[in-house]
Amino acid sequence: MDDRAIGIFDSGMGGLTAVRELIRRLPGEDVVYFGDTGRVPYGGRGRETIIKYARQDVAFLRTFDLKVIVIACGTVSTTALEALSQENPLPVIGVVEPAAQAAVRATRTGRVGLVGTRATIASGAYERTLRRLMPQVQVTANACPLFVPLVENGRYQVGDPLVELVVEEYMAPFKAAQVDTLVLGCTHYPLLWDAISAYLGPQVTLISSGAACVDTVARLLEERDMKSGRTQGGRRRYFASDSAQDFDALASIFLGEDIQGQAQQIAIENY
Amino acid sequence: MDDRAIGIFDSGMGGLTAVRELIRRLPGEDVVYFGDTGRVPYGGRGRETIIKYARQDVAFLRTFDLKVIVIACGTVSTTALEALSQENPLPVIGVVEPAAQAAVRATRTGRVGLVGTRATIASGAYERTLRRLMPQVQVTANACPLFVPLVENGRYQVGDPLVELVVEEYMAPFKAAQVDTLVLGCTHYPLLWDAISAYLGPQVTLISSGAACVDTVARLLEERDMKSGRTQGGRRRYFASDSAQDFDALASIFLGEDIQGQAQQIAIENY
Repeated sequence: MDDRAIGIFDSGMGGLTAVRELIRRLPGEDVVYFGDTGRVPYGGRGRETIIKYARQDVAFLRTFDLKVIVIACGTVSTTALEALSQENPLPVIGVVEPAAQAAVRATRTGRVGLVGTRATIASGAYERTLRRLMPQVQVTANACPLFVPLVENGRYQVGDPLVELVVEEYMAPFKAAQVDTLVLGCTHYPLLWDAISAYLGPQVTLISSGAACVDTVARLLEERDMKSGRTQGGRRRYFASDSAQDFDALASIFLGEDIQGQAQQIAIENY
Repeated sequence: MDDRAIGIFDSGMGGLTAVRELIRRLPGEDVVYFGDTGRVPYGGRGRETIIKYARQDVAFLRTFDLKVIVIACGTVSTTALEALSQENPLPVIGVVEPAAQAAVRATRTGRVGLVGTRATIASGAYERTLRRLMPQVQVTANACPLFVPLVENGRYQVGDPLVELVVEEYMAPFKAAQVDTLVLGCTHYPLLWDAISAYLGPQVTLISSGAACVDTVARLLEERDMKSGRTQGGRRRYFASDSAQDFDALASIFLGEDIQGQAQQIAIENY
């Protein structure tokens, strides 16, 4: 039994889709979330910059007493997980391995698609992991750099012509490749679930990288007897590097619940 | 005569459209450019964050011996110009006053449109300046938060269905309001010039805020006898807060010339 909190961070708001899943699956756990809204998005930035920012994010989270750190960000997971794991004396869980495992379990044909930010796709981390788990896998990958700005501007609904045009453009290669499983390798993308699913059809299984990594966290806590003694009522604390009001206002989209007045702003460059 | 450099900065690459105009108009001047590519975009961030970032940008530029500082960024100009002007003992030129003056000179009907980032439109700075210069002006304003991600992803060509859909959505209010002049209040937007102009038609005059502010700089240097002694061959130095290679690669889009290998990366959070 371990009542310490789970630390979770993302470049911005997207990681809240993983927090939502964490709250649903493990409602008794305390959660500390940091969203780097003052420096979002990470996906188009250089490798060294992403690693530097991720180190500061973890340094801030570790001012709390944590039992595990979750990287709820595809870009950081593919770019900085190794460095962060080596530098920190507690488990650091990214989204790549869990999502790749879920994809390998789901695929029947071995044709797996992958979407993510430019940095995530360029890293090749998902492909390497998929290939290690399933050597005969055929991976089709496509960076979708406009998905994050669309979602962050509230544009993700089915029926929005702009959303449908962008989804069609980015998803056409997966239809052509006849994938039967698509990994959403960025925690913003689950908001586009319905639009993507409507285009690809019900025969394609979508894998949410955030939900997959929450599975892994739940298993880890179970195996190591590190679950909280509570089964309900975990405390959630939210921090952001830009305006807390703006965070509160947008959070409900990603989290599916209102956190009005709960977020606090911190100066991440001091960590 | 004054051979010190002109310092110019932007949240990212967009300010290079103003540098391009500066080089064309004042080819003998030395220019130091800083693009905050590690923290771009500023346009959706909170006011305090924008002011903090802008102060660091200016602090870095002032490590050079400068005669004037140009804020080639609509968001910073509308949010932080007053603070930056008060804190620095050299002229600080933003884009708002110059672009508003150009719009007032251009309009025949007094119906002026304004586009910019969310922060720029929310600040009301352009409207206040337009109204001071022309009390009877009718201003129609619309934030275009997807223009910057489109441009930064190389999506600005006429004929690109995505570009045309977004342009149509954002420009429809200006067609309805029958503006005869439209201020492009963000230095990224001149890349969308042809697409915007194709939609609005030739009867609408477009005002580039970056080009307008270069007019003001040229006049200031002339009036105060602060022009360089050279009429050609000014030295240009480029700095960015993210990867210099990425800056070099994208710069040619905005600048219209190749600067391969010239940019240097600096750690802006240390200023």
